[in-house]
Amino acid sequence: MTKIEWAMEQIKLLIEQKKLLEGSRVPSVRQYAKQLDCSVSTIVEAYARLVSTGVLESRVGAGYYVRKNSNTNPLLAEHTIEYSREVDPLWISRQSLDAHDNMLKPGCGWLPKEWLPEQTLRKALKLVAKSESHFLLDYSTPHGHADLRRYIARKREAYDVHLNLQQILISDSATHSIDLIFRNLLQAGDYIIIDDPCYFNFRALAKAHRLNCIAVPFGKYGPEIEAFKHALQFQPKLYLTNSGIHNPTGATLSMQTAFEIAKLAEQNGLMIVEDDIFAELEYFHAPRYLTLLGLKQVIQIGSFTKTLSAAVRCGYIIAQEAMIDQLIDLNIATHFNTSHLNAEIIYQTLTDSSYIRHIEWIKKQLQKHMMATVKQLATLDIHPIAMPKAGMFLWCQLPAHIDAAELSKSCLANGIILAPGNSFSQAKNAHQFMRFNVAQCIDKKVYDVLVTCLNAQKILHAG
Amino acid sequence: MTKIEWAMEQIKLLIEQKKLLEGSRVPSVRQYAKQLDCSVSTIVEAYARLVSTGVLESRVGAGYYVRKNSNTNPLLAEHTIEYSREVDPLWISRQSLDAHDNMLKPGCGWLPKEWLPEQTLRKALKLVAKSESHFLLDYSTPHGHADLRRYIARKREAYDVHLNLQQILISDSATHSIDLIFRNLLQAGDYIIIDDPCYFNFRALAKAHRLNCIAVPFGKYGPEIEAFKHALQFQPKLYLTNSGIHNPTGATLSMQTAFEIAKLAEQNGLMIVEDDIFAELEYFHAPRYLTLLGLKQVIQIGSFTKTLSAAVRCGYIIAQEAMIDQLIDLNIATHFNTSHLNAEIIYQTLTDSSYIRHIEWIKKQLQKHMMATVKQLATLDIHPIAMPKAGMFLWCQLPAHIDAAELSKSCLANGIILAPGNSFSQAKNAHQFMRFNVAQCIDKKVYDVLVTCLNAQKILHAG
Repeated sequence: MTKIEWAMEQIKLLIEQKKLLEGSRVPSVRQYAKQLDCSVSTIVEAYARLVSTGVLESRVGAGYYVRKNSNTNPLLAEHTIEYSREVDPLWISRQSLDAHDNMLKPGCGWLPKEWLPEQTLRKALKLVAKSESHFLLDYSTPHGHADLRRYIARKREAYDVHLNLQQILISDSATHSIDLIFRNLLQAGDYIIIDDPCYFNFRALAKAHRLNCIAVPFGKYGPEIEAFKHALQFQPKLYLTNSGIHNPTGATLSMQTAFEIAKLAEQNGLMIVEDDIFAELEYFHAPRYLTLLGLKQVIQIGSFTKTLSAAVRCGYIIAQEAMIDQLIDLNIATHFNTSHLNAEIIYQTLTDSSYIRHIEWIKKQLQKHMMATVKQLATLDIHPIAMPKAGMFLWCQLPAHIDAAELSKSCLANGIILAPGNSFSQAKNAHQFMRFNVAQCIDKKVYDVLVTCLNAQKILHAG
Repeated sequence: MTKIEWAMEQIKLLIEQKKLLEGSRVPSVRQYAKQLDCSVSTIVEAYARLVSTGVLESRVGAGYYVRKNSNTNPLLAEHTIEYSREVDPLWISRQSLDAHDNMLKPGCGWLPKEWLPEQTLRKALKLVAKSESHFLLDYSTPHGHADLRRYIARKREAYDVHLNLQQILISDSATHSIDLIFRNLLQAGDYIIIDDPCYFNFRALAKAHRLNCIAVPFGKYGPEIEAFKHALQFQPKLYLTNSGIHNPTGATLSMQTAFEIAKLAEQNGLMIVEDDIFAELEYFHAPRYLTLLGLKQVIQIGSFTKTLSAAVRCGYIIAQEAMIDQLIDLNIATHFNTSHLNAEIIYQTLTDSSYIRHIEWIKKQLQKHMMATVKQLATLDIHPIAMPKAGMFLWCQLPAHIDAAELSKSCLANGIILAPGNSFSQAKNAHQFMRFNVAQCIDKKVYDVLVTCLNAQKILHAG
């Protein structure tokens, strides 16, 4: 604590103890400096900060006063909102984002913050604090951070994809990327193909755009070919999917399936939007539609949220130059610009050598906890449909007669946030399924609460 | 430069000088450490960073190699895009954002980066680099940074508006805020009222949402009442305007006009979306619709871009609790989350005592350059319609027979980006007008180029 912070604390303490009352004058700067044995400039700064944080107010020529209702104002208290909402595509997001720190979140879609490369990120922030002023103050060019685009282009060389920098647009997040693409290519009422199950927010996005979703069952090797062919009869405008590790099933697209879907897409002029956000967590490189079909037929999107930070928002879109140009116009109109600072922080973190080591560490941790979670869940008669090759998700079948939504609601009341199957399912046929994030299933309490709630449901069902 | 950076530079130099060729092996870590008289760990780190920045590649067990086409790959060069596009609502944005550093931008809508509180921001970044990990790694709650919302609420007390924290949503920018509101309240084909002239991006946003805009002439004291009454016949869903200092006219809403518009809004159940981004630049507090009508009829939005940083994206929405809740669902679906890190950096900057002093400095600078610019432009027979009370904009009439779009195109060819009137005008009757940003009109070259281009147009017209 600096001297300034200490002096601020002293004033706050006097207010708390009612030794300084609301509306009363606080000691003059000189008086108080003497009293605390500080320099005058320390108290000047402390008072100024107390004014900007709303504790004191300054009256010109008359000194400083305790602000009315400053921090005790009940209006300015943060309330937790109680949701009674039904399990819809936004249920898991709202619960997870609004959760208290002491809640456990086996249903959420991200790694615990202890798993993220905190020290590398802090180092990057310090570096950026000293870097060129345009990263701190300026808008970025419409395409976004050039070095970060170069990094993204180089990463694609591993997929045999050779991009130029004008084929990449930096966005705010993977979700923002899809939103821009939808706005550019689709109109309300259009049909799109999604996987069933798929990432629940794809469904929320489609709803926000008033689209018609055709859900194609997604199995162990990718979408079911016959169902996909059937879906094409509706003349869908695009197919939105996770490449690499699939959310929520953890499945990996097989080369045969990728080839079949790619041929169908080509024959039918169907655009594929490929969300690549889990790429860093792969052990073996799964096929990508972008590799097979190129930019004429595929738009790839991604972000750095899963392995770097959820607080530093940054994503990207890879598409043909002409489309990127349209997306830029749309981004200016609806968002004006993306955060140049965030892109620079991300770039500095990615290019620090410790980042690669950290990813290796994360992958090892995931493998270890994947095994442990499968074992623990088996004791509750909860089993994954298939064993994922990589990633954080297990798509599990619950014991007979257990409803995922009911179980999620009762676990929520006990401080555990789950991810019930129907949030992921357009066809609503996943009420017996649950997605578990193995990185969020370490605490024993998860299983204790699950046992209790499962038993309560079984008794209810038996009764 | 650290030792690591120096070692990296040496390798890059060898590649540039063709002493190390593409595909060739670089010295082993030990060899090179000896050669440069560095520690082995320095070279390990240097090589690792050269790998992540795409200069070298690592082949397991075989050492490090110069990557093919690494930095000489023409694909990965940044190109400047040439625009031949017509002057539309996005013209100024694209030109300004894509501008080279050596271009002058009297047409752009922001302060030069030298005017922004760079040191305070750097201090905030260093502070945040050491702050609690959740600001660096976690998603924020759906409403966003609580202390920042408290700060925003307290600021509104000056307008006699008393908010609770659930009536505020942190967004990515002012534009993002309006976009969310439009998505929530409007459908394609709906009518809205905008000012004529108005901020050009309001028009771009309306176009992206496929809305019908009714343009009401905006004069010295605000919108023309009779025209506003007439516009109400179309049953518009909302009225979007700048409160405080108006963009582009620099005008300030009078209390009488505010009162008349407020009554009309109330009688007709018309929602007003009030963009408050220039509030910090006011000398005297202009009326706000939010003060007169409250949250039942007004949504207020804003950001910190104008006086703090354009690189740290952060904005907000003030609305009724129930509407904020709907906007959160929409924000999760289309954006998932806003940057917690940015909000924390903004909060730390705002509450540093030097920020308020810096705003005072900016206001003095603006006043000084407002006077100087008016004088300089007068020598070219360019005159503001009215003298703004505050802010950075002058809305000027050009000499007779000079077309703003033509002048802008010829100035662009000479390295000067202007803001032609019709970009701001739905009715397209501002071809004789130009917006000047006084903070970007300091360089003598602005006037030199203007003289040359004005004369060329006069000759053309005379001929």
